Order: sequence, then C-alpha cells, then structure tokens
Amino acid sequence: MSDKIRLIIDTDPGQDDAAAILMAHGLAKRGLIDFLAITTVAGNVPLARTTENARIICDWAGETGFPVYAGADKPLLRPPLTAEAVHGQTGLGDAVLHAPVCPLQPQHAVPFLIDTLRRAGDNSITLCPIGPLTNIAQMLALAPDTVRAVKNIVLMGGSYFEAGNMTPAAEFNFYCDPHAAQIVLQSGAPVTILPLDVTHKAVITTPRMDALRRLPNANGPRLAALLQSYERYDIQKFGLEGGPLHDPCAVACAVFPELFNGGHCRVDVETQSNLTLGACVVDWRNITGQTPNARWITKVDADRLFEELAESIAILP
Amino acid sequence: MSDKIRLIIDTDPGQDDAAAILMAHGLAKRGLIDFLAITTVAGNVPLARTTENARIICDWAGETGFPVYAGADKPLLRPPLTAEAVHGQTGLGDAVLHAPVCPLQPQHAVPFLIDTLRRAGDNSITLCPIGPLTNIAQMLALAPDTVRAVKNIVLMGGSYFEAGNMTPAAEFNFYCDPHAAQIVLQSGAPVTILPLDVTHKAVITTPRMDALRRLPNANGPRLAALLQSYERYDIQKFGLEGGPLHDPCAVACAVFPELFNGGHCRVDVETQSNLTLGACVVDWRNITGQTPNARWITKVDADRLFEELAESIAILP
Amino acid sequence: MSDKIRLIIDTDPGQDDAAAILMAHGLAKRGLIDFLAITTVAGNVPLARTTENARIICDWAGETGFPVYAGADKPLLRPPLTAEAVHGQTGLGDAVLHAPVCPLQPQHAVPFLIDTLRRAGDNSITLCPIGPLTNIAQMLALAPDTVRAVKNIVLMGGSYFEAGNMTPAAEFNFYCDPHAAQIVLQSGAPVTILPLDVTHKAVITTPRMDALRRLPNANGPRLAALLQSYERYDIQKFGLEGGPLHDPCAVACAVFPELFNGGHCRVDVETQSNLTLGACVVDWRNITGQTPNARWITKVDADRLFEELAESIAILP
Amino acid sequence: MSDKIRLIIDTDPGQDDAAAILMAHGLAKRGLIDFLAITTVAGNVPLARTTENARIICDWAGETGFPVYAGADKPLLRPPLTAEAVHGQTGLGDAVLHAPVCPLQPQHAVPFLIDTLRRAGDNSITLCPIGPLTNIAQMLALAPDTVRAVKNIVLMGGSYFEAGNMTPAAEFNFYCDPHAAQIVLQSGAPVTILPLDVTHKAVITTPRMDALRRLPNANGPRLAALLQSYERYDIQKFGLEGGPLHDPCAVACAVFPELFNGGHCRVDVETQSNLTLGACVVDWRNITGQTPNARWITKVDADRLFEELAESIAILP
Repeated sequence: MSDKIRLIIDTDPGQDDAAAILMAHGLAKRGLIDFLAITTVAGNVPLARTTENARIICDWAGETGFPVYAGADKPLLRPPLTAEAVHGQTGLGDAVLHAPVCPLQPQHAVPFLIDTLRRAGDNSITLCPIGPLTNIAQMLALAPDTVRAVKNIVLMGGSYFEAGNMTPAAEFNFYCDPHAAQIVLQSGAPVTILPLDVTHKAVITTPRMDALRRLPNANGPRLAALLQSYERYDIQKFGLEGGPLHDPCAVACAVFPELFNGGHCRVDVETQSNLTLGACVVDWRNITGQTPNARWITKVDADRLFEELAESIAILP
Repeated sequence: MSDKIRLIIDTDPGQDDAAAILMAHGLAKRGLIDFLAITTVAGNVPLARTTENARIICDWAGETGFPVYAGADKPLLRPPLTAEAVHGQTGLGDAVLHAPVCPLQPQHAVPFLIDTLRRAGDNSITLCPIGPLTNIAQMLALAPDTVRAVKNIVLMGGSYFEAGNMTPAAEFNFYCDPHAAQIVLQSGAPVTILPLDVTHKAVITTPRMDALRRLPNANGPRLAALLQSYERYDIQKFGLEGGPLHDPCAVACAVFPELFNGGHCRVDVETQSNLTLGACVVDWRNITGQTPNARWITKVDADRLFEELAESIAILP
Repeated sequence: MSDKIRLIIDTDPGQDDAAAILMAHGLAKRGLIDFLAITTVAGNVPLARTTENARIICDWAGETGFPVYAGADKPLLRPPLTAEAVHGQTGLGDAVLHAPVCPLQPQHAVPFLIDTLRRAGDNSITLCPIGPLTNIAQMLALAPDTVRAVKNIVLMGGSYFEAGNMTPAAEFNFYCDPHAAQIVLQSGAPVTILPLDVTHKAVITTPRMDALRRLPNANGPRLAALLQSYERYDIQKFGLEGGPLHDPCAVACAVFPELFNGGHCRVDVETQSNLTLGACVVDWRNITGQTPNARWITKVDADRLFEELAESIAILP
Repeated sequence: MSDKIRLIIDTDPGQDDAAAILMAHGLAKRGLIDFLAITTVAGNVPLARTTENARIICDWAGETGFPVYAGADKPLLRPPLTAEAVHGQTGLGDAVLHAPVCPLQPQHAVPFLIDTLRRAGDNSITLCPIGPLTNIAQMLALAPDTVRAVKNIVLMGGSYFEAGNMTPAAEFNFYCDPHAAQIVLQSGAPVTILPLDVTHKAVITTPRMDALRRLPNANGPRLAALLQSYERYDIQKFGLEGGPLHDPCAVACAVFPELFNGGHCRVDVETQSNLTLGACVVDWRNITGQTPNARWITKVDADRLFEELAESIAILP
C-alpha cells in the first residue's frame, strides 16, 4: 500500500488557486501525491466561473480528463461575495481563456466527497480547501462519519497575528462563509490552517517570479503572467515585496509539512458580530484551557516552498 | 392528475409529533393527502430515539412498511439540545414502546429529499417540518434547485406575539437550530409558519381530550394518553387550559388552510445574539418595507382543527 | 410629612410627551403630586428642540418659572436617531410655537438629578423617563448611590407581546439607546415599564379626543390638536382606532398604579445584535428562574386613564 | 506660558500602574510635566483598593498631598472583573502597604475631570488612562464639550497584531469595559493607543530590573520588587524575557512621543460578540476607507524608554 498523500483540492480559482492546482498536478507527475479530484465552490468569482476555470487549469496541466465536481454556489447563510477587484472578471486576471476540454462531472461536489470518503480507508484522504469552506462544511454536516477517512484538512484561510485582507478583522475565505469555517473547526476532523500569518511570508518576489518565467515550458511563463496580474492588490494594500502565494501554501503544507511551523491550539471563527465577522480567535497561548482543534501555521521556509513550486511547475507541459 | 396534497413530514417525535404523524396517516386513509414519507431529525430527543419513535408510530397506524428516513443527528452549528423534561426520556412520555416493525430506509433523509423533489413536478410537494429545521436547511443549501418542486413548507416553529417556550425570546425548534431556520427563510421557497402565537390557541382541553379517549379504536385512547403525559409542562408554564397541540397545527394547515389565518411578512431568525438566539423578527406591519418571505399564522379555528384531528385518528386502527 | 408622589419627568417632547407634561402640571395643581422638575434628552427630535419644547409646554401650563434642565444630546454609544416622521419637524406636530418664557436652568440634567437624589430621603423620588434612557443611565452609572432615593422609575419604553414601532423587534425609546436601557435595568433601582404592550391599549379614540377638544380652556383644545397631528402614524401602521397615548401612561401609572396591571419579571434589552437591537426579553413566565428586576405592565383601565388625563388638563389654563 | 505637558493619570493600580505613577511624579520633579491629578477606577482590583493604592504610591513619591479622585466602581454595562491572579490580592503584589497619608479628594473623578477640562485652555490637557476607560467615557458622554480641552488621550489598552492577554481576542482594560473604550474612540478626541502590540516589546529584562534595583534611593528597589512580583504571569503565558511594562508606555509616549512609532487608523472595539468581546479592529491598512480616529502604536525604543523610566525613578526619594 502506498503512503502517498491522496489529495482533493476544493477551490474557487483565482490566480493563486491556479498556482495551487498546477502545483498539485506537478506533484502528482513527480510521484509525490495521488491527486484524486477537484471540487469547486463560489468565492473569488461565481461558481460557474470557478468551475470553468478549474477545468481550464487542468487542460493547461495536460490533464484533460481530470475529475472536476461543482459544489456550492453560495455560502450557507451569508449573501454571496466575490472578489473581482483582486482576481479580475474571470478570476484569472488577464489570461486568455479557452473553452475547457476537461469535462464537468455530473455529480455535485458534496455527495462526491461523501461517497469518496466513505469508500476510503481510515485517515487516508487529505482535503485541501483553498476557497470558502461551504462544500467541506456541508460534507461534514451531512455525513459526520466521513471524519474517519480524513487524514487532514489542510486549508488556506483566516488571520490572527496578521491583519485581515477582506476587512480589518477577517481574511476573505473565512469572511465569505464564517459559518462553514466554524462547522469545519467544530467537526472533530484534524485541521491545519494556513492563515495570512504565514502566506504573507510567502511572497512572490521578483527573483521568484523570474524563476517561473524562465522555465522552458508553457506553464512556467503562464503562471508567472497569472501571478503578476494578481500581485498588484496585495503589494499596494499590504506593502509586501510581491503578492502572497496564499493557496499553494496549503498544497505544499499537505505534502511538505517540514517546511512549515506552527502550534496546536483552539481556533474559533466569529459568526455573531458584523464588526468582526469571520475573524479567527486563536488561543495561541492556551489562555482558555480549551482543547486544541487545529494546527495554526505561522512560519514557512519560503525559499524551499518556491523551489518545490518551481520544480512542480517545471514538470508540466 | 390528482390535486391531493403530497406530504412529507420532517419530525423529532415527541408526543405532539406523534399526534401530527397519526393525523397524517389518518388523512391519507381519508383520501385527503398522499403521505409520501417521514424524515427524522434530532430535537426533542436524540436522533436514534426520534427515528425509532417515528417507526413505532407508523406501526401504531398500521403502516408497518411506511418509508422513514433518518437525517441530521445535530444542528448545523449549535451544540445538540434535547427536551426530555417536556417529552420524557423516550420522547413519547409514559407510552410503552415496542421494537418497531416499520423498517428504517437506508438512505439519509437529505439525499432522499433532494432525489424526491428533483423527480417531482413543479410546486408539487408539501414539506411539513415539525422539529428543528436542520434537514430542510441542508436540502436547500445543497440543492437550491429543489425549491422548484416545493408547493409549501408548512412548519411548526417560532414565536413573536407569544412568549418563547425555550427561552423568553425563542421557541424550541428555532432555538435548537436557528441557522437552519434562517437558511429556510432565505431560500426563496414558499413558507408557512405555525408559531406559538397560534399553537397556544390550539389547546387540548378536557372535552377535546375526552373526545379522543372515547374513540372506539386503539389509537384514540393511545393518543389521549400520550398527550396527557405531555400537557403538564405547558399548563404549568403558560397557564393554558391544556397542552398546546403544536405539531398537528402544521399538518392541518397544509391540508385545511381555511381553518387558519395570518399575514404575509418578512420573517428573520436571530443567529447573532445569545440573549435572543432563535427569536423571530416578524415584520408584521411591514415597517421595514422588505418583501415578505413567509406566511405567519396567528389564528386557528380550534374546534374545527380538533374535529379534523379526531376524525383522522378515528379512521386508524 | 406628605405622602405625595415627588415626580421628575425625563423627556424628549414629542406630542405624547407634551400630554404627559401637561398632565403632570395638572396633577400638581390637583394636589396629587409634587412635580419637581423636567430633564430633557435627545430623542424624538434633537436636544435643543426637546428642551425648548419642554419650556414651551410649561408656559402653556402657566408654569413659566418651572425648572427645566437639559441633558444628553446623544445616546451613549449609538448614533443619534430622531423621529421627525412621527412627531413633525419641531416634535410638536403643527403647533405654532412661541419663544419660551420658562427659563433653561444652567446645570446639566445629570448632575441635577444626582444632587437632587442625594439630598432626598430614601425611596422618596419617582422618576418618570418617557424618552431614551441616556440621562437616567448616566445618573446611575456615575452615582450608583442615588438608587437609595429612588421610589420608582416608571418609564415608557419597550415592547414584548406587541410588535415594535421602530423596528419589528424594538420600540423607539429602547432602540435609540439600548445600552442606557440595559444600564437602568441592571441598576437595582425599582423599575416599572409601560411598554407598547399596554400603551397600544390606551388609544385616543374619537370620543376621547372630543372630550379634550370640548374642554373650556386653552389647553384642552391645544392638546387635542397636538394629538391629532400625531395619531396618523400609528393608526396607519398599527391599525389602531386612534394614536396610542404612550407617555401619559407612565405619569398615570406613577400616580394611579391601581389603573394598571402587569407582572414582576426579569427584563433585559438586546445590545448585541443589529437585527434585534433594543428588543426586550421579558421572562414573563419565569422560564429562566432569574430574579425579577422590573414590573412589566400589560393592562390599563383606559377609560379611567382618560378621565384622569381630562381632569388634569381641565384644571390648567 | 509653559509648553509642558499637563498630565492627568486615570488608573487602577496594579504594579505597572505604580510604575507609571512613580514615573509621572519623577517626570514632574524633572520639570518635564505638570502632573495635575490622579483619578482612579475599578479594574485590576476593586475601586476601594485601587484608590488606596494610588494614594500610597503618591506617599512613596513624597507627594503626600497629591490630588487623588475616586471614580467608577464598575464598568458601564458589564459585570465587574478584576485580575488578582496577575496583580495579587492588593493589586501591588507582595508589597507591604501602609495606611496612606495622601488624602482622598471628596469630589468624584468624573465631575473633577469635567470641571478641570472646562476651566482649561484648548488642547491643553493630556489624559493618560491606564485602566478600564469607564471614567473617561463617562466624562465624554456627560460633557462632550470637554473634547475641546483635550490635547491627547494617551491610553494603554487593546491588542491587534499581538494576542490578547485576557482572552485570545482581547486585552484586559478593553475587555473590562469595551463599551467605555468604544465611547472614547467615537468621541472625536485625539487618541493615542499603546496596545500589547507595543508593550510586549517593552519587557523588563534582568539588566533593566537590576538598573532599578541598584538605584540609591527607596523607590528604585521598591519598584524593582513590585515589578518582579508581577512579571511571572506574562513570562509564563507569553514566553517573554520579562514582564511587559504596559502602563509606563502610555506616560512615556505622552512625554517622549519620539520614542514611539505607529500609524493613524480607524480603531473600533467589539461590544456585540461574547467570543471577541473587547477585541480591537484596527484598520491598519485603511481597507475600509474610514477616517482614522486614533494613533495605534506598534514600536518603541525600549532602551531609551527604560532610561527615561530609571532617570525619573532616580529623582524620587
């Protein structure tokens, strides 16, 4: 039996989602993971768009038959919220998008996830949600028994020591569907969180961008162009040296946990106040004495992260 | 094509749930409805118990093959909450309970509901939720397209002009899963609400109890005994003449809407404050100018309601 | 020593405030109360306006030297909120207003209240707040020892069994400054609340309006005209037979408690949720087991209330 | 006319409050400030204790006639909360406390503040609140005109980039009375905030402690002993090298602003959610576009801070 990470990405592409998906396809080609499927969710752009984007990105990776499942088209309780100002009208910046070859699977993402996890062995599936957590929360609410098969939910979302990027209190994914985030955190499943606290330390500096751009394949320059169209927002707002590579952090942390550092602690998401909606309350120093429910990542070896990203992109067409 | 109401009850029995289920079986025997299925949810007692109770009640009605589907075993976000103090340890007061003959269907209630509604014609199914709204909210979140097939969601829950029965601000079903209630109210499906405002006007007075007790079948006296074990709580707390017949109001309103009166208005459920959690905000006088999303029932012809109940019970074994 | 009620009205006139103030002046002339002072607060209209109105109303009553103290010009935390749509631009509907003779006292209302209560005997002063509770809350926060001298705080505000008039959940005075209301309710002072539950049973029907209009003095017809300009709002919104006489209920209840009925219970005001802001949670049936902190009035002998009002107005110029 | 800072400290001593008060007395002796008065508030320990402590600390400084005014004995809305676990039963750790010579002024702190500011020139008074903000909020609510005389409110409280010390979301002073904090922030007065973000960078390392201990007067060793009894809590909880010198940061920032760095931004305090109660929402990057209402300090030249502290203590008896 293989010890390879068996990965499902739940995503709302988005340029950095694209980077994460391409990285996952590359990691699969490198023999480091089994990349099982992509499920999509409304987020950075509406569901129809995130789903088509996911299929296009699979085409780019040469995976024109990859299983892509569409999921929730809006958050559980909150009105839908998108981020075209950051990601552009299509979600993929200025990229010219073709009609995807990669088909859309007929099943809804949530029953697909439930069926897949129910058929899987204990602790055998790594979920990598890099958008709002609506699908994962619905899976856990509808089928609490799926927790058994979850090896880890390695997700991108939230902030605590770093300022929010959607509001001063909240990061985009958690703000979009705070109820879903809280359902995931209460589920009893093992959770690893890649918040802005760490992703703002994984910025796409010029040398890193150049390394992608100079790759002798199509996807290196393509990804460099994608990321360039996206970094403006964060550079301007956060004074970073480059755009933060949010979502690939989650994929990388699932596969290379040794590149990341953090602590186990109790994490809750604010659902009751408009001012702090979607804010994470991280009991980093165990003031409350509550049992930890998540691993909260604060540090990354950014150089090695980018090496792994570049190596994974390099193996693609 | 038949114009009969095609009814599914979503329930957490509970004595008054038992009355509603028996009434529905009787209404079906009277040829007034197609009673399609029962789905169960955690509420008055835990899910295992509400599910077994539903099957036992079908046995009582002579419907030993009736389709019963088990659903959510806890609310979406809130910790589980039960009401054994009102309904007794089994949920059915002092009734002696047998091992049910009526089988449990293997499918989960939520996919059953989704499949059923997707196969049904437009506006063809009446849902009658008389417990916490977790199942119905999951159905609507997972499959918003099912709204098309919903003729009406005629539910028991909430309070506005009447005091709450779980807290001073909230009724039990809405308090248990306020997020689910708000999801249902935001779904765009037609909703009719039978709150405490009306169910406290449908009390089981001594003559009404006697009418059931004197029925020459098994289920009349059985139901009278069940309701007797339950009315103590409300008589004591609310100073009513008898226990309020909460849940049969929803079934009756689905079938005999002419017995009920109310108004169309905007209804929202409080999810953000601990003090008022689960409270209904009913824009009864359209102060806010918002578009109505529900019919809020405040009046009932209680005498005719009990006549219909007694007639429906009388036709059972 | 006299047993007469020693009354201070805290007010934001407002037509029904005017009725309450005129009634108090009449009650004093009838020898039934010592009317000590008026303190003003921002509410129905801004503070400058409520203060000038209070002085004008004292002029109308022939009390051109009556002590009037201006208080808070905005709520404790919330942004100011006025109700010109109900009360007209001046707060006194279409009444032609003169420059007041009655002077404004130099002291701020809150230190005046503190000084007055500190000099008074135990349980000797009845406060009658009929606007937002900002002044009274500041008094109690700054000088908790003043509780000793409070005989009763008989206030108009809130709703529970009746719908709100500012939002579906809240009455105007409590919505304006919910934090102040909660401070008063937590203070330990004896509190009697005249909510919409009772004031909507004290409506100014045509015969009652006529009785005022036919009084052979200036203030009878003047008050009838004032109230007429104000009743339109509530008749239209609430389908009442006439405008509810909110504020005189508080003055009347302080002097003629035998005309009113209610229960002692725990009352809290919502400060945490936007949806239900200012809502009262009244533990009318003692579900929570908490100690009562207020008397919640639900019934009034409206005929006798109007007789006392008419008799008190009749004695004025 | 002097340009000296005219300082009033509002305080709940507390060992680090003691350091701040002693520093202020020393700064006055050094001719750098006019130290006008101390007002006290309930916080670290109850009001009776904080008030007596303030008077004892003035005695220690040789200022046995210094004006000390007692203020609020509890927060505006929240139940009282103290921190004996951090500060010891008396609030001053293991220090042996004498009966104070320094008298208690008869006036309440809030009218004293109002009177003082009303008599003062424009922008002439620096308030330095280092406890819960109850007194300052009451001053601003009762007398909004006092803002005119406020040069700056330089306060210790809150956290944003650093974890809370009372809950994972909130610092002690803001958690104690979040409504007061929000009133101050909404008042329009100039506000400078010294949050945990900066005070955790001003830790009392062993060499700094030694420098105080070796001072050839009574107050150096006394303060060293005081601070030693207090640092245990934070060293243990926060893994710092020494206890953070919270409150002297505020006094120092009022007098030596050049030692501190931060940004002007919109700051709000959470009052609506239990989970995040008292949390600061700091729009550090102006995501919301709101006008700044405070200066949020994040950096300090800790070496120079401690030099100024030591020099100010050295001049005392």
